[in-house]
Amino acid sequence: MRVNAYAAPAAGKPLAATTIERREVGANDVLIDIEYAGICHSDIHTVNGDWGPQPFPLVPGHEIVGRVSEVGSGVTGHQVGDRVGVGCMVNSCGECHNCTNGDEQYCVRGMVGTYAATDRDGTTTQGGYSTHVVVDADYVLSIPESLDPAAATPLLCAGITTYSPLKHWNAGPGKRVAVVGLGGLGHMAVQIAHAMGAEVTVLSQSLKKQEDGLRLGADHYYATSDENTFEALADSFDLIINTVSAKIDVSAYLGLLDVNGALVNVGAPPEPLDVNVFALLTNRRSFSGSMIGGIAETQEMLDFCAEHGIASEVEVIGADQVNEAYERVLASDVRYRFVIDASTLG
Amino acid sequence: MRVNAYAAPAAGKPLAATTIERREVGANDVLIDIEYAGICHSDIHTVNGDWGPQPFPLVPGHEIVGRVSEVGSGVTGHQVGDRVGVGCMVNSCGECHNCTNGDEQYCVRGMVGTYAATDRDGTTTQGGYSTHVVVDADYVLSIPESLDPAAATPLLCAGITTYSPLKHWNAGPGKRVAVVGLGGLGHMAVQIAHAMGAEVTVLSQSLKKQEDGLRLGADHYYATSDENTFEALADSFDLIINTVSAKIDVSAYLGLLDVNGALVNVGAPPEPLDVNVFALLTNRRSFSGSMIGGIAETQEMLDFCAEHGIASEVEVIGADQVNEAYERVLASDVRYRFVIDASTLG
Repeated sequence: MRVNAYAAPAAGKPLAATTIERREVGANDVLIDIEYAGICHSDIHTVNGDWGPQPFPLVPGHEIVGRVSEVGSGVTGHQVGDRVGVGCMVNSCGECHNCTNGDEQYCVRGMVGTYAATDRDGTTTQGGYSTHVVVDADYVLSIPESLDPAAATPLLCAGITTYSPLKHWNAGPGKRVAVVGLGGLGHMAVQIAHAMGAEVTVLSQSLKKQEDGLRLGADHYYATSDENTFEALADSFDLIINTVSAKIDVSAYLGLLDVNGALVNVGAPPEPLDVNVFALLTNRRSFSGSMIGGIAETQEMLDFCAEHGIASEVEVIGADQVNEAYERVLASDVRYRFVIDASTLG
Repeated sequence: MRVNAYAAPAAGKPLAATTIERREVGANDVLIDIEYAGICHSDIHTVNGDWGPQPFPLVPGHEIVGRVSEVGSGVTGHQVGDRVGVGCMVNSCGECHNCTNGDEQYCVRGMVGTYAATDRDGTTTQGGYSTHVVVDADYVLSIPESLDPAAATPLLCAGITTYSPLKHWNAGPGKRVAVVGLGGLGHMAVQIAHAMGAEVTVLSQSLKKQEDGLRLGADHYYATSDENTFEALADSFDLIINTVSAKIDVSAYLGLLDVNGALVNVGAPPEPLDVNVFALLTNRRSFSGSMIGGIAETQEMLDFCAEHGIASEVEVIGADQVNEAYERVLASDVRYRFVIDASTLG
């Protein structure tokens, strides 16, 4: 099946309209008519070649929402007409201890990314900037009908990337959670942590987005450019979710953690970070990482968001605005996520 | 009360016999006739000034075992004649949330170290290389009579420093624990982790001490100088206790952790360590720190060691051999801990 898509022809080149081949719907596959595809900073890193060589032409997009238009003979969990979503992975081995424990994102044999990855059948995956996608039913999520489909789209990456560590590190009543950075990931982390019942503090470079942060559910908002912040907040958090992928002063942020506290990175800067080990010894602190979440946990997150009326704040764009949107993401000029209206792909 | 001691007169100078003043026994104090004092690598760092300026003359020693010879009127937990111990701290505020939770080592106002620290009454603490010490009863541990007193001495620092993280990170049956370095701390970690029921692997620079490691309870022993070790053991531990205070390749060791695994440093190199954040994101790993343990936990560790017949392997020396012993510690020429026989202090 030949379908319309928006692809990067080569590393660092502008994306343009094209067509790509989607596989036939197999027994356990779901064909999705895509309604929306989110733009994640990872898409930009990937097409720019920041993370190494990639298979071009490359269709990015791992935040996908649409309607089921066909299911394979063996599919029982999804029906034609259902609103569904696809996140950052479309396959994994299904057999290792991580897959069987619901941690498919840590599949020992390597999860299959939604784009620019080699699928288990040897083909190269192509992402959501497209009109249709065929995905193994086990990696297709149900989108609750109460969620606005455009606003729900970023939940598939930004939502689960922040929900998973908040859940794993027990954000909830009585827990003091800080979120570093109020962008695509951060604005989800604030809403989710607040809905979980935690006391939420935003640590942002400036106070520029303070009003937004408080509206989204933050109890406190501090500028990290103000040196007093680090003194005032010493030893005062149980959990810090760092959504910033650039190099930060890890030891300074560790100093904000109370006993047994964890600083959890959900993004990774390309260069290594310096850690002063004394900052870890004091208060038995941890510097940790977390990567998206498992399939069952992603469904749990979607249901949680529907229950609490949480979604992303999005700016819906046409496909011909993708290259401009990339520029604006790099300039942090978006509140808070671009979502492509797939109907504009023709 | 004037008592004999062995003190460093100035930074980097050899230790020599001297006398120091011990305070009068207060209502909640215990006077201990010291039998043994262990030599910890920290003692050497401190007297050499590696950790900043210190109050000299300085009597090191935070692994102390002896007999109670006098108790204050308010003391109920210890009696004259009891064998007792003192570890790395002799006071804390007793009021903050860490103190009241039994984590006195993370006292918000700062725990008072056994030597070179300013006690809450404003005096400077002096350590265990001495014939007597007066300590607040709340910081005095009971040494089970079944333990050999010399061999029990290093438990007060090396024992609790490794027991606490093993307990906190749930070492036990089904858990795969690696211990990096087989020195004073490492040889305790191996014995304790084994007694807790974990599967224990030693990661040492060479195979030189392999026989000792296996005898102490390790199930496996690998040389980290062999590059194959890091490939062979990828993703295979739940917990790694790093007892090495020198700079290590943190990211390489993180790569040995399975999902949710933690690399826990119990020592701190003075320079910061580089961490590749991708190594944290994969498998949701943590790089953590742990510092000694609380008072109740130290007692628990002593009882655990008595129950399991665990102690340190020690070389008992006279006070006049302290300077030579320091040289040998720096050359890693001790299996596994020097203990000063306090009767040689005259």
